[in-house]
Amino acid sequence: MSLTYTESKEIAYYMCDRHQNLTLPMLVNILLDVSEKQSESLNRDEAFVKARGLSWIILHYEFMIERMPKLKETVQIETYATEYNKLFTYREFVIRDANHKELVRVKTTFALLDSEKRKMGRITEDIVEPYKATFSKRIRRNQKPAEPDLNEYTEKTYAVRYFDIDGNNHVNNSHYINWLLDSLDSEFLSQHDIRHGVITFDKEVNEHQTVISRVSYRKEEELYTDHLIRTNGASHCSASFKWIKVG
Amino acid sequence: MSLTYTESKEIAYYMCDRHQNLTLPMLVNILLDVSEKQSESLNRDEAFVKARGLSWIILHYEFMIERMPKLKETVQIETYATEYNKLFTYREFVIRDANHKELVRVKTTFALLDSEKRKMGRITEDIVEPYKATFSKRIRRNQKPAEPDLNEYTEKTYAVRYFDIDGNNHVNNSHYINWLLDSLDSEFLSQHDIRHGVITFDKEVNEHQTVISRVSYRKEEELYTDHLIRTNGASHCSASFKWIKVG
Repeated sequence: MSLTYTESKEIAYYMCDRHQNLTLPMLVNILLDVSEKQSESLNRDEAFVKARGLSWIILHYEFMIERMPKLKETVQIETYATEYNKLFTYREFVIRDANHKELVRVKTTFALLDSEKRKMGRITEDIVEPYKATFSKRIRRNQKPAEPDLNEYTEKTYAVRYFDIDGNNHVNNSHYINWLLDSLDSEFLSQHDIRHGVITFDKEVNEHQTVISRVSYRKEEELYTDHLIRTNGASHCSASFKWIKVG
Repeated sequence: MSLTYTESKEIAYYMCDRHQNLTLPMLVNILLDVSEKQSESLNRDEAFVKARGLSWIILHYEFMIERMPKLKETVQIETYATEYNKLFTYREFVIRDANHKELVRVKTTFALLDSEKRKMGRITEDIVEPYKATFSKRIRRNQKPAEPDLNEYTEKTYAVRYFDIDGNNHVNNSHYINWLLDSLDSEFLSQHDIRHGVITFDKEVNEHQTVISRVSYRKEEELYTDHLIRTNGASHCSASFKWIKVG
């Protein structure tokens, strides 16, 4: 039975958008902070894997959002590793309000990166045992984002900034999400909320690179946006979001 | 005698740079979070001034930095309003480590912005009385940043992003600091720490604007950088930082 770690968190001003709702980039920062807290409590913190020449990387997010936490709201953040195999571990996060109502659920796929070989490392018992997740040979099929419409898209470019690089010498996850969403029209962003999202990370972006963030809109029964982040020649990250109109 | 508000804070991963030190943009976010907590405790939170058609803006920072807090370090953050007059209030922040050693001291000048008239509002007793700061007619002369060298500077441009805009419909302070510092060479940033800094804010940057962040290096007994952020025709923010070589 997976160990669950819970922390309560008050949403601060700098975490929020103009409508005083938690932003998706900051949501991800907060969640990863809580999962690191669990790892610390199990003596499996970042330094533990780093000492083995490894670092955790995220390959996939799925977001299910009832509503985002609001400015000054205190929420409960729950996390647990659900399952693992030789290459991946799966971790879930649940955010609840003061009445225990579920606001946000996030499913993530992690892998270990061998920092020297720049390839994926084997997930070993000594690293994951304390989390009490279930071993299962089965490799999950994560939902794939749809590709942007090649006939009707817009693009913005972003240079990687000095402070985008984190303590693992990677561009921090939250900045990819900022690039993904900032490519959308600001009026659209201001009038819509995300209800569901999938993001996949394929290839790291490095310092001194400039990325191109492409997006197209897709209207089915619901409204979707499809995203691709690339540099000259390479795809780095793709995403699809489902939106509802608000305000 | 000014009321002091103190909070302890653990420095999270997403707040840190590649060397696992708290970044200056995140420092400012955390400090303002703590000052808002004091205001809440005195029933003078953001909503209180907003209801009067006002919002606090920051005009000037002075940073005195012994060392920045590190990843996972728990620090004490102390804040108090020192003095006020009809136009400005002065607030100080002190960050201390576990042994009560002072790491960072920040002096700030705040003013009230009348949201409708887009000009400065009068600071009245009912707003500031609970902080127990001293009234003094004297308007302080804040240290001015030096101007970048017109013969030898570099520039980078930054478009305002959707998430740069905060709950007051302003570009959040921390993003100006990101633009200021990101204009520097990344190798320089990686090998130097800020020991002292002054930042002045002259004019708001708005959504859909692109700013130009100019910087030049100045070597006296110590090493300085001088900064100017402008849009076509207007100056918005200037700064000077004193650096020491590290690593």
